[in-house]
Amino acid sequence: MPEKNNTIQVVRKPDEMAEVAGKIVNNGGKIGLVPTMGFLHEGHLSLLKLLNGKCGVKIASIFVNPIQFGKNEDISAYPRNEKRDIEQLQAAGCQIVFAPDPEDIYPPDFQTYVDVERITQGLCGEYRPGHFRGVTTIVARLFNITRCSVAAFGLKDFQQAQVIHRMVKDLYLPVELIFGETVREADGLAMSSRNTRLSLAERQTALRLSRALEWARQRAENSAVEVSEIVAGVSHIISSSPNAVIQYIECVDAETLKSVETIFSRAQIVLAVYVGKTRLIDNITIGKDSGTKPIASVIL
Amino acid sequence: MPEKNNTIQVVRKPDEMAEVAGKIVNNGGKIGLVPTMGFLHEGHLSLLKLLNGKCGVKIASIFVNPIQFGKNEDISAYPRNEKRDIEQLQAAGCQIVFAPDPEDIYPPDFQTYVDVERITQGLCGEYRPGHFRGVTTIVARLFNITRCSVAAFGLKDFQQAQVIHRMVKDLYLPVELIFGETVREADGLAMSSRNTRLSLAERQTALRLSRALEWARQRAENSAVEVSEIVAGVSHIISSSPNAVIQYIECVDAETLKSVETIFSRAQIVLAVYVGKTRLIDNITIGKDSGTKPIASVIL
Repeated sequence: MPEKNNTIQVVRKPDEMAEVAGKIVNNGGKIGLVPTMGFLHEGHLSLLKLLNGKCGVKIASIFVNPIQFGKNEDISAYPRNEKRDIEQLQAAGCQIVFAPDPEDIYPPDFQTYVDVERITQGLCGEYRPGHFRGVTTIVARLFNITRCSVAAFGLKDFQQAQVIHRMVKDLYLPVELIFGETVREADGLAMSSRNTRLSLAERQTALRLSRALEWARQRAENSAVEVSEIVAGVSHIISSSPNAVIQYIECVDAETLKSVETIFSRAQIVLAVYVGKTRLIDNITIGKDSGTKPIASVIL
Repeated sequence: MPEKNNTIQVVRKPDEMAEVAGKIVNNGGKIGLVPTMGFLHEGHLSLLKLLNGKCGVKIASIFVNPIQFGKNEDISAYPRNEKRDIEQLQAAGCQIVFAPDPEDIYPPDFQTYVDVERITQGLCGEYRPGHFRGVTTIVARLFNITRCSVAAFGLKDFQQAQVIHRMVKDLYLPVELIFGETVREADGLAMSSRNTRLSLAERQTALRLSRALEWARQRAENSAVEVSEIVAGVSHIISSSPNAVIQYIECVDAETLKSVETIFSRAQIVLAVYVGKTRLIDNITIGKDSGTKPIASVIL
């Protein structure tokens, strides 16, 4: 029997989740999914809101997916608070939480992976080998287990959004994707479960990421500008703090994720920076046409 | 508009197939799929019969999948006769033929693959690197494009059957698999589209495959027997023809596809042999318990 938490249903076993979802779908129901790694913040909850009117049943998954962490990455340091997550999901109108155990998701005989090739090679993919293979494999499986016809992802993980979009298109997965704009704290810091690991001093340093990106946006607002100048400026703003170690800052085409040299109409600045031991990512659309349509529609 | 061939509908474009299938599913219909590479024979048609009572709409796909052929394998030599295939499918009660063009299935930006790891490494996988990656990728996509809830495959391609079963289980694809026993000519030759490429003399040689497997089945029928003796016997029967070049003959556990050393209750002999330029595969269940349940149920 599923655990009940007032009105929200918590499902642990993949087989049970598939059965529950199958019944909903076979009765003509539509399911929406927000896949998460838990330790929820307003960014996650905003994705649930984006499902409004798109489905009758909202499922959120909470699963810290081991195969998307590299062997040098400390999965045990990823923050968790399942009890609070479930309370927040219930308050946000989510009907089912799928929170499986890793050993049920990856039994010993598991051996099937989904691989997106070219657009996973650069940016985060270059520094986190195997990361996107882990992401696409778990997302494809969550789509199938939950039988969702719509799913929402945040654009803070910009490359991930494009990779998942590519996978859905290439595999003809019958799932509509919705992308939510990055939700930020009042001072501009992109919301992330990892932010809680920042010390007060580190949090001040972390602010430089969004400030640098906002500087780039303004700099490229009205005229064509050289990428080298933009990247140097963003780099300078961030690296002038001793706490920050830049992994990459790149200016790419939002769809192909290939580097661009001159910014004419619009482009995407994407970056990854270590602030102390915490790896943060952020991105922004820049260029004179950056305001013409939301970046989510560039993906779709 | 779809081409009509009396009552059978021929769909070429993946997007159109997905749309047609989506409407059927959204109206509560159930779809069954037989994926084929065309040049149909009784083996394929027997799979359509296995869908009876399992679905309201039967789809057969005809697609000679380029990514499952190696760079040393001649895809252009694969036999084709689409007109006859469609006639046969119509006569067999199939309602829709999905026969896409390769450039629509693999547009230039396509880059997502499905990979089953361990059980694709030996047997045919060892001699056809990339073959099963091509198979699992196209089968996963055909499942999603046709929105099938049931699909049938033949057991002549024994490793393929296990690989697809593994993929469906691992990815939680919502598709019931049905496996059809190998259909043979009156003289025992396993039906294959490739048989038509055999000369009269080669066809006589090809008969040795099923004869050797039948010898193995009888030899292991009532007692424990050493694999080395069985494999040597099968090898001797086949290789005493100058036309036959054995690629592999192995005795494996039917589920794990790992080699077994002694046959106690049951095991699977699988083989691949070049007869002239034509590569043929066949397999049989042997051992004292080989008759207790059909091999299809060992997979499921």
